[in-house]
Amino acid sequence: MAMSLPIHGGDLAAAERRWGKPEHNWLDLSTGLNPWPYALPHLPAESWRRLPGEAEETALRASAAGAYGCAVDQVLAGPGSSALIQAVARSVSPRRVAVVSPTYGEHVAAWKAAGHAVSEVAIPADAAGADVVVLVNPNNPDGRQFTVAEIQALSERFALVVVDEAFADVAPDLSVASHVGAGHVGSGLMVLRSFGKFYGLAGLRLGFCLAAPELLAAVAAQLGPWPVSGPALAIGAAALSDRVWADASRAHLANAAGRLDAVLTKAGLHGLGGTSLFRLVEHPDAGNLYDRLGRAGILVRAFALRPTWLRFGLPGGEAPLRRLEQALT
Amino acid sequence: MAMSLPIHGGDLAAAERRWGKPEHNWLDLSTGLNPWPYALPHLPAESWRRLPGEAEETALRASAAGAYGCAVDQVLAGPGSSALIQAVARSVSPRRVAVVSPTYGEHVAAWKAAGHAVSEVAIPADAAGADVVVLVNPNNPDGRQFTVAEIQALSERFALVVVDEAFADVAPDLSVASHVGAGHVGSGLMVLRSFGKFYGLAGLRLGFCLAAPELLAAVAAQLGPWPVSGPALAIGAAALSDRVWADASRAHLANAAGRLDAVLTKAGLHGLGGTSLFRLVEHPDAGNLYDRLGRAGILVRAFALRPTWLRFGLPGGEAPLRRLEQALT
Repeated sequence: MAMSLPIHGGDLAAAERRWGKPEHNWLDLSTGLNPWPYALPHLPAESWRRLPGEAEETALRASAAGAYGCAVDQVLAGPGSSALIQAVARSVSPRRVAVVSPTYGEHVAAWKAAGHAVSEVAIPADAAGADVVVLVNPNNPDGRQFTVAEIQALSERFALVVVDEAFADVAPDLSVASHVGAGHVGSGLMVLRSFGKFYGLAGLRLGFCLAAPELLAAVAAQLGPWPVSGPALAIGAAALSDRVWADASRAHLANAAGRLDAVLTKAGLHGLGGTSLFRLVEHPDAGNLYDRLGRAGILVRAFALRPTWLRFGLPGGEAPLRRLEQALT
Repeated sequence: MAMSLPIHGGDLAAAERRWGKPEHNWLDLSTGLNPWPYALPHLPAESWRRLPGEAEETALRASAAGAYGCAVDQVLAGPGSSALIQAVARSVSPRRVAVVSPTYGEHVAAWKAAGHAVSEVAIPADAAGADVVVLVNPNNPDGRQFTVAEIQALSERFALVVVDEAFADVAPDLSVASHVGAGHVGSGLMVLRSFGKFYGLAGLRLGFCLAAPELLAAVAAQLGPWPVSGPALAIGAAALSDRVWADASRAHLANAAGRLDAVLTKAGLHGLGGTSLFRLVEHPDAGNLYDRLGRAGILVRAFALRPTWLRFGLPGGEAPLRRLEQALT
């Protein structure tokens, strides 16, 4: 029997076409989003009405610089990290690009679409001959980690190193955000950050590129004027200044991920890694399990090229965790 | 004395650097935004939290298709019409492009940045030899209008005709939205629509490209996944379905523009044209008037290449209209 293609993360419409409408609501574990989002601050009416202004943009960049540990002029905001992945790939003249794989598929797609010669390499050491190295840290979907020293060493060897830190909010020690643009070594280092995953507000479309100002100017030109919405500017500025929330959320997510581990292990799923926002597991019969969960109204992430893998996002509380446990039994 | 460069529309931070903080709040007449915005509908929490889904996107496209008069599969939503101007320019392989000028500056900038050979022409008839013709209808800043028949004739002569209808909500009879993708003639016709101007919600970042599905696919590839925020999908779908509001607003804006005309005429400013969302006037001493208004806390739009022109957006009520009248006296 031909295996159906895995459904894209979060695509409940496709899930419903395949398995029908579930008896209860969908439990969507197919993304790596924090299920306990940052509470929306009051939004001034002007944030909806006016074109986003320089003052609001500067406030957001200052908050981001504080949260990520770089300078304000090393911060560019964009409408989601996917948009920034594309803008970065287009901002560089055609090169040989090595993407450390397997990883988030948009990187290979975006660099190819922008006309670069792209190869996928298993480890950075295999990137010899490339001009640009792209890696995700911690990696999605397997949580593989690269140390700051490893990435610094890469940035000495290659013209440009792009580090997608979409999940680094839950592993801040791995971040090289404070090393961008720092003299010779950091001048070719770019960091991408996602706002929506850790803050649980993916609908907002907000992400950042951190780099030396001269690299950022080329990326900004790709985005054009007013790339970020007024509400995203206001919410991002408030959330990224809130260190108490961030610290508490890191602890809370680590705890929730541990409880998810227990449920997955009990069900005979072998853990391959992950972050506090998702876990990757292996099972010889993952395809059937994916299907069984789908019929029970639980969408997880499967991988066309890795048919024994499944990725689980965090259930947002006791009830959904028990629902998952039951469906896995 | 060297004339200072005009300030970009809506850039109050730059205005404050030039003229200082005004005694009262800024009266910003430098954009063409409806000062009576559409009231925000209730937003489901999911619109902030989840990645925007297919169902929400389809609902928005259906509302837009109804409002603009085309088919759902001829609608692509993007994060503002500026982003779409860039995406359209990049979606076409390098060509000779004629932009009917003077007009909104982003068109020439975006097509040049995408590698096209761009010329500016005063009338479409001067575009002979071009592959692509770009025009704004009604035009910004002078309100020049092109009839549906004129644009249809252009789309028979040129491979691609891009019509920016950013202000066509207040002049719906001019729109060629219902002609995109209609057989041979419409197959190379693209229409851009802005949401934020007529609905007074520019901070939302929402715009549309209307065209045959095969043309839209190339533009969508430039935008990447999830280009539009969840709140923009929900608000856009509600607002674009509300014909009662749209009809009432058209009448209200036309009336307000007439009252603005009376104030401008009384001040000796010669009207050159416009739409119900802005008026363009001429005055031999426009540079000094621009400066005098700025010092009075009123920002209008000036034009570096047309030093005798000023563009006025609508004051949002009796008090700001009287304030403008006083400042012009």
